[in-house]
Amino acid sequence: MSRWPLPEPMQLALMEAQAGESAGEVPIGAVIVKDGKVIAAAHNQPRGLSDPTAHAEMLAIRAAAQVLGNERLDGCELWVTLEPCPMCAGAISHARIGKLYYAASDPKGGAVEHGARVFEQAQCLHRPEVYTGMGEAEAAGLLRQFFQSRR
Amino acid sequence: MSRWPLPEPMQLALMEAQAGESAGEVPIGAVIVKDGKVIAAAHNQPRGLSDPTAHAEMLAIRAAAQVLGNERLDGCELWVTLEPCPMCAGAISHARIGKLYYAASDPKGGAVEHGARVFEQAQCLHRPEVYTGMGEAEAAGLLRQFFQSRR
Repeated sequence: MSRWPLPEPMQLALMEAQAGESAGEVPIGAVIVKDGKVIAAAHNQPRGLSDPTAHAEMLAIRAAAQVLGNERLDGCELWVTLEPCPMCAGAISHARIGKLYYAASDPKGGAVEHGARVFEQAQCLHRPEVYTGMGEAEAAGLLRQFFQSRR
Repeated sequence: MSRWPLPEPMQLALMEAQAGESAGEVPIGAVIVKDGKVIAAAHNQPRGLSDPTAHAEMLAIRAAAQVLGNERLDGCELWVTLEPCPMCAGAISHARIGKLYYAASDPKGGAVEHGARVFEQAQCLHRPEVYTGMGEAEAAGLLRQFFQSRR
């Protein structure tokens, strides 16, 4: 018996999260896919880059926009290991990301199904389709392990 | 009789907004002050940089963090010509900005006193002190003029 494998972009996002952990960052990873191809991947890096905005999603969005030479990422998917915060949810909307897939939900900091609920605001000009839960155990496990090891 | 002058950082933020307009960007400017000195200034640049995250506040925060060599902008003030959106409000919180001054409020896209109200969420770990209204007429005038000229 074998377990149904995770979609490849989420496997890559989890690998990015692990790379972040190895670099002493909170283990969160993100990948951007366009037309079935990965065009950007990143992990959290606020410490390493001395940049409070350097969440995995932000770095992946900025890298993908450079690849496409366009501030709008129409038709792109963002795969990320944790529910995006208000900053990242806002960036996802500005970037016109078509589909958002996240693994673990984040009651403490998430802004999709928690707190600011950025995409549910009447003001929100672009809402991605949102899919959650694939890779949840793996993504949450990485975060739990990281924070336990730092106590 | 002369009108009480605007605080210097807001004058600078308005000049940044005008520089943005000259470059074909939405005229919004931001300045970061630490210990009474301006350490970063920026205008909106998503088109010019092909970067959907390149709002004035984001660019100013990232530049200030580079100047300080630290992802946390403790004791810094952010002066911006328009009420921050969810992305920028989230970044302001992550950066630990001490005081936020904005000129015009933004019912359509703001997330401080409108919509997502990022700083009012129970989740929000850092809330700046918020001051509004200085330079409101000038900031709103620049935006109105910009959008009228594009119709």
